[in-house]
Amino acid sequence: MAGKRGKEQPGEDALIERIKTILGPPGPPVRVGIGDDAAALCESADDSETLVTTDLLVEGVHFNLEWASPYQVGWKAIAASVSDIAAMGGKPTAAVVSVGARPRAREYFIKSLYEGIAAACERYGVVIAGGDTVRSDRAIVNIAMLGRARKNRAILRKGAAPGDIILVTDTCGDSAAGLQILSLFPKSEITIPFMKRLINRHLAPEPSLAAGLAASASLAPTAMMDLSDGLAVDLPRLTARSGVGAVIYEEKIPTSPDLRAWARRSDVSFASFAVRGGEDFNLLITASASKVDDLERNIESAGTRATRIGEIVSRERGITLVSSSGEILPWPEASFLHF
Amino acid sequence: MAGKRGKEQPGEDALIERIKTILGPPGPPVRVGIGDDAAALCESADDSETLVTTDLLVEGVHFNLEWASPYQVGWKAIAASVSDIAAMGGKPTAAVVSVGARPRAREYFIKSLYEGIAAACERYGVVIAGGDTVRSDRAIVNIAMLGRARKNRAILRKGAAPGDIILVTDTCGDSAAGLQILSLFPKSEITIPFMKRLINRHLAPEPSLAAGLAASASLAPTAMMDLSDGLAVDLPRLTARSGVGAVIYEEKIPTSPDLRAWARRSDVSFASFAVRGGEDFNLLITASASKVDDLERNIESAGTRATRIGEIVSRERGITLVSSSGEILPWPEASFLHF
Repeated sequence: MAGKRGKEQPGEDALIERIKTILGPPGPPVRVGIGDDAAALCESADDSETLVTTDLLVEGVHFNLEWASPYQVGWKAIAASVSDIAAMGGKPTAAVVSVGARPRAREYFIKSLYEGIAAACERYGVVIAGGDTVRSDRAIVNIAMLGRARKNRAILRKGAAPGDIILVTDTCGDSAAGLQILSLFPKSEITIPFMKRLINRHLAPEPSLAAGLAASASLAPTAMMDLSDGLAVDLPRLTARSGVGAVIYEEKIPTSPDLRAWARRSDVSFASFAVRGGEDFNLLITASASKVDDLERNIESAGTRATRIGEIVSRERGITLVSSSGEILPWPEASFLHF
Repeated sequence: MAGKRGKEQPGEDALIERIKTILGPPGPPVRVGIGDDAAALCESADDSETLVTTDLLVEGVHFNLEWASPYQVGWKAIAASVSDIAAMGGKPTAAVVSVGARPRAREYFIKSLYEGIAAACERYGVVIAGGDTVRSDRAIVNIAMLGRARKNRAILRKGAAPGDIILVTDTCGDSAAGLQILSLFPKSEITIPFMKRLINRHLAPEPSLAAGLAASASLAPTAMMDLSDGLAVDLPRLTARSGVGAVIYEEKIPTSPDLRAWARRSDVSFASFAVRGGEDFNLLITASASKVDDLERNIESAGTRATRIGEIVSRERGITLVSSSGEILPWPEASFLHF
């Protein structure tokens, strides 16, 4: 969806604003248009609305076929789209798939890709409704996914207010660590279990669908989005849309034992992975102090965890990071870790 | 949508069958899955169903930026998707757009592309709900479009029965003639009006939305699809899905004065353009003999024309072409005219 992949395109957020100017404000049936994790359309007479998101993945930009099998590319493409729907508090229903493949590798690539797509669709309850396959000299995968949310209740990036608590689900930074490991070692030589798990978090991520539905059911979130580009890039998107600032406590950002084990061997601190790493596909949520207990309880019942990492403050205060030593730092540059 | 662009990928229809095997039969909410112009989803309690289609266009495969401006690429991308929705008898509502652009040409390309998208969307009543922009070393455009049709009444490729009349809307072959002209002359030297009109039919086609809606309202069509790859390729898709054969009378296929003017100067017969040319985005319709008058009247009221070009026969009789001289020919090879 628009707003993602900022790491690869400096100025993409500015470009989105220009596109919005060209298109003008969207009319019905679109209730929520460009600029959130998914769009929301009010079309039916019942108490639900349709969510829709599109995500374009290009070989050499978003995936590397030396590291990822076509099966993993297919899984991850579905996972990323499910994450967009989950970030609206919705449930994915159906998707259409466009694939570009090299003529010579076409049979194997498409078969393996679709096996990964089918596995992820089964896991997250998505039905593939249709597709398009074309020839291309680079592999291309586009997923357009539909979902449902309660009418007028999809959770947007805007809505956070000063005093709200900021939470993230699951842990941060694993995917970026997995990407760094892949860039440093031949895949066949990566045999240590924690390193293999980190790689898997990068190549076959699991979107936070249950957590998103649990968050929505609690009625607590004031804003929500998925962390596809990492906290450093994504938090400013949420605060910009909500017209607020934020304080984040570095030491509160949840990290996995695997990430901390890798950080001890790497030249990058685990906090840096956690703040700047992308593609974790966990959720960033804000909730008023009075409802945050309900939110945490609901998410825990769904088998995952939400961790408080900071508070929403007034826009004037901007976004600051409080380091583990208590130092107040400017928010890190919006550049993704590149290895 | 799956099933298109066969001209570029021999064996694509076989590949689609393999994908269907991997995915298994689609469950709810999908009522019509892979293999038609668009998919149909039953999600809402009212009397409508959701249509969805996806279409991937890659620079150098589907468009050439030396011939087409980004504006025209944007227009045509929307037009092709509207045509898929129209071919189901539906009305397009909203679309999401994925764009890949070269970093250096990004600003201009995306601005001009979206201006073409916006113009086509205004023309056909489509609202852009969202998008994704990424970097790529080739321009890429994917449109996923939603539409509505009456519940359980989307018009499919299957349903044609022996005795049905076969019709096409508008004329056939103009787009292919325009493509040939572009391939023969520098664009700046093409000044003759009929040649410019043919080029325009290729670069900025108009989908048969009004005709599709009129056909649907008549309740007459037994099957319908859009001609994106040309009669030679697309008719066998309709007959295969319907389990029937067909007889087509070459001299009845409607062609424009512009095409006939070009054919007199070209080494290709106008009938060959009409049978083999793709991307006219007109409609191929079958209707029972008792209802075909209603169908024609409705389509004429919508400001266009439907022409009877043949009949559906039993599957055993296959597909034959009756030439202008009365000769019964085998159906032409499913290869698009390449220039």
